[in-house]
Amino acid sequence: MALKELTSREEDYSQWYNNLVVKADLAESSAVRGCMVIKPYGYAIWEKIQRKLDDMFKETGHQNAYFPLFIPKSFLSKEADHVEGFAKECAVVTHYRLKTNPNGTGVVVDPAAKLEEELIVRPTSETIIWNTYKNWINSYRDLPILCNQWANVVRWEMRTRLFLRTAEFLWQEGHTAHATSDEAMEEAKRMLHVYADFVENYMAVPVIKGVKSANERFAGAVETFCIEALMQDGKALQAGTSHFLGQNFAKAFDVKFSDKNNQLDYVWATSWGVSTRLMGALIMAHSDNNGLVLPPNLAPFQVVIVPIYKGEEQLNAINAKVEGLICELKSLGISVKYDNADNKKPGWKFSEYELKGVPVRIAMGQRDMENNTVELMRRDTLEKETVSFDGLAARIKSLLEEMQQNIYKKAFDYRTSVTRTVDTYDEFKVEIEKGGFILAHWDGTTETEEKIKEDTKATIRCIPMDEIHTADGHVIGNEPGKCMVTGRPSARRVVFARAY
Amino acid sequence: MALKELTSREEDYSQWYNNLVVKADLAESSAVRGCMVIKPYGYAIWEKIQRKLDDMFKETGHQNAYFPLFIPKSFLSKEADHVEGFAKECAVVTHYRLKTNPNGTGVVVDPAAKLEEELIVRPTSETIIWNTYKNWINSYRDLPILCNQWANVVRWEMRTRLFLRTAEFLWQEGHTAHATSDEAMEEAKRMLHVYADFVENYMAVPVIKGVKSANERFAGAVETFCIEALMQDGKALQAGTSHFLGQNFAKAFDVKFSDKNNQLDYVWATSWGVSTRLMGALIMAHSDNNGLVLPPNLAPFQVVIVPIYKGEEQLNAINAKVEGLICELKSLGISVKYDNADNKKPGWKFSEYELKGVPVRIAMGQRDMENNTVELMRRDTLEKETVSFDGLAARIKSLLEEMQQNIYKKAFDYRTSVTRTVDTYDEFKVEIEKGGFILAHWDGTTETEEKIKEDTKATIRCIPMDEIHTADGHVIGNEPGKCMVTGRPSARRVVFARAY
Repeated sequence: MALKELTSREEDYSQWYNNLVVKADLAESSAVRGCMVIKPYGYAIWEKIQRKLDDMFKETGHQNAYFPLFIPKSFLSKEADHVEGFAKECAVVTHYRLKTNPNGTGVVVDPAAKLEEELIVRPTSETIIWNTYKNWINSYRDLPILCNQWANVVRWEMRTRLFLRTAEFLWQEGHTAHATSDEAMEEAKRMLHVYADFVENYMAVPVIKGVKSANERFAGAVETFCIEALMQDGKALQAGTSHFLGQNFAKAFDVKFSDKNNQLDYVWATSWGVSTRLMGALIMAHSDNNGLVLPPNLAPFQVVIVPIYKGEEQLNAINAKVEGLICELKSLGISVKYDNADNKKPGWKFSEYELKGVPVRIAMGQRDMENNTVELMRRDTLEKETVSFDGLAARIKSLLEEMQQNIYKKAFDYRTSVTRTVDTYDEFKVEIEKGGFILAHWDGTTETEEKIKEDTKATIRCIPMDEIHTADGHVIGNEPGKCMVTGRPSARRVVFARAY
Repeated sequence: MALKELTSREEDYSQWYNNLVVKADLAESSAVRGCMVIKPYGYAIWEKIQRKLDDMFKETGHQNAYFPLFIPKSFLSKEADHVEGFAKECAVVTHYRLKTNPNGTGVVVDPAAKLEEELIVRPTSETIIWNTYKNWINSYRDLPILCNQWANVVRWEMRTRLFLRTAEFLWQEGHTAHATSDEAMEEAKRMLHVYADFVENYMAVPVIKGVKSANERFAGAVETFCIEALMQDGKALQAGTSHFLGQNFAKAFDVKFSDKNNQLDYVWATSWGVSTRLMGALIMAHSDNNGLVLPPNLAPFQVVIVPIYKGEEQLNAINAKVEGLICELKSLGISVKYDNADNKKPGWKFSEYELKGVPVRIAMGQRDMENNTVELMRRDTLEKETVSFDGLAARIKSLLEEMQQNIYKKAFDYRTSVTRTVDTYDEFKVEIEKGGFILAHWDGTTETEEKIKEDTKATIRCIPMDEIHTADGHVIGNEPGKCMVTGRPSARRVVFARAY
């Protein structure tokens, strides 16, 4: 137990997170600066995320494909904003061979094997993909193209944190091509809604859907849509983005199509992505001082059964009784682990599965055998109760559904409790220190946005698309007002926060 | 049709393959030398391969994880044989930043951003993984570790061909750690059998299981097991390998464990992998001059239905009739595409789906509507027949099973027909020109093996583990003999071929 003890959230939130990621066997740092190892338990959660998102992409008509890891350096320069955003910190391949060190120790780069043009390890794939689409598109009949790829990408971040910001991360990137601006815009919004649906209903994390300010836009996008989540320390986390790219990449890579009237025009584009960063959001949104809290929809296993016994005879009796329950749970689509390993004590197992966020724990001892009961614990509230063995599978099924709702509701209520309006900049400077989402008026200029960021470290998370409920019961929509900093007109309140 | 025409296999096998990969929308070359784009139809087949293999790995107790893309240069040198095999041709990252070219055109590598130690894009991950396992393993209780990763890897090949040999490719690599030599050896063999099972029963490609000669062993392995397949041009293709690594990597990375008696020992290891090369094997083993032939178990869709009609009324009638069939097929687990697009002619669709290897094609025209029939074509034999609409789904289900068997049998019979024994080197030199597998005696030395390779371009594919049937009806097992080159004693015949 001592080995597994976590720093508490109250003591040091950041340390609590780092601790939890490592101790719950989710991920760890590697020998390569800024690159992580995703451990089997963490990867099992990522696989559930992947599988569900992949299904949702396919249901909305997308297909997977795979594009090269490397991007010729010159491609990055073709879209002016894009190069500004992505050429800065990236891994550059300059050589293609090593040779034995002339002094006999190890290997060195072979200077004779220098590439004519350097290759960049993809930080995102718009350029290589649009260079490919050029050959796929001639006429409107070739459109739309609705591709997605699951891939690793590299951005040379200076300050890294497991899952939240790593030099290499895993993600999916959708890249679509359309005949009209409207269709591309519709696609960009559709995928934002898919992301919001997934994050709210599977990750149980409420999000605000919105539009990024020009300053926070993806490099090369005309419009960036995003979903913003709130972590338990009151900091925001961007959970996914979907970009309307206009004709920027089509122009950069000269991708034209002939329409039904045989007129040539540039193709319209979107791109959208979520990454292993979602793992960070999942962990930070729900977990507690005992460890992970996983929403049942994403738990690698939803139920663990721990027998408590003395001697083989008692164990055999429990084994026999539990067998039918396991079958019944599986037939209800519930994943279950029966841990009757004899080299660990029940108490050790209890804290281990709490740490790993297994939603439901069932303990079964001698008295339970006699009374036809089990002890059932739900991870979200840590409540225990003794319940009848009869009808247990059905009871667990509805409990898991209830927990999924409850975990969402808890996060939603917390978010609402720290979401408020602020009307003056003085008040803003005080309030921003307390964390949470602040809805304030802004004059729409990059200058004001940057001043606020410089003064307070707060950024505009988004210009929200929907109404937002605040702690004091107001519903904030499209009401105009005056910028809290400059007093100039503001079309509507926008969402400020400090963010990951 | 003209657009899609393939070079025939007889005319130019190599050109036929390249043509087919591109025209069937499987993959294409990219702007990056040696790197391919895997197109949606090709990727859909790869996803089926992945999904099934992943299930088989999990059924045998393995878990997925993810390790860094980059390997510090010094890691490669830690295992002496390994560095010889893999340091030669690899992508080397030397810098982590680009900057605007001082002359204002594009971007250049920032010389100030040079890495202290170069990073290698993984050609395989033994080194980075064993460096990680060092921290995971203390005692026998931590063993075995049974991890797999799905990843991209890069080997800077000079002569590349789509799927068969590309600079970047996709693969899975299993890396396991064990307390005993026996257990590791058992694991290496288990995974070889998993591969053979998959390749034979899903890809419908018969394989010879065997052991590599010392010369053909994986760099760093004590023993390499392999499965060898035969392509239609008589050349062999290594379809998968599984390595018993002994304690080589544990020693290189100092990974020890304490056993039950508290004695320290180095950990025993295996690694095993298959790659997108399997796509090449799948294509080359079965396809014909009309295009791809896909075994039903791996076809992205197994049935295509094409309506033949004049006017909307006829189409509506066919749509209505087909609807129930589609539901019935889906309920039998059969994937189906109904192509009633009106911008392509039936003839065009027929050749398109032949090219793409869709196992079963159903055409339904006006006469079929009147007679309650359909025209059914099976892709493997190109046989057409008119059959009743009644009981069609069940008929298709058994036809797909029959086709899966038939495609395997055809490949198996072909292989047997070109598998023969040879006893003299003169005869060998004549026979090897004809392609196929040649079973001949070899004295077991690398010198003889290399002489044969130099003289004839033939390599020892493997020392087979099972009996092999030859064209003339013999069954070749463990019979000793004399080396065809040196006359020295040979323990048993080994398998020679020219190979991809």
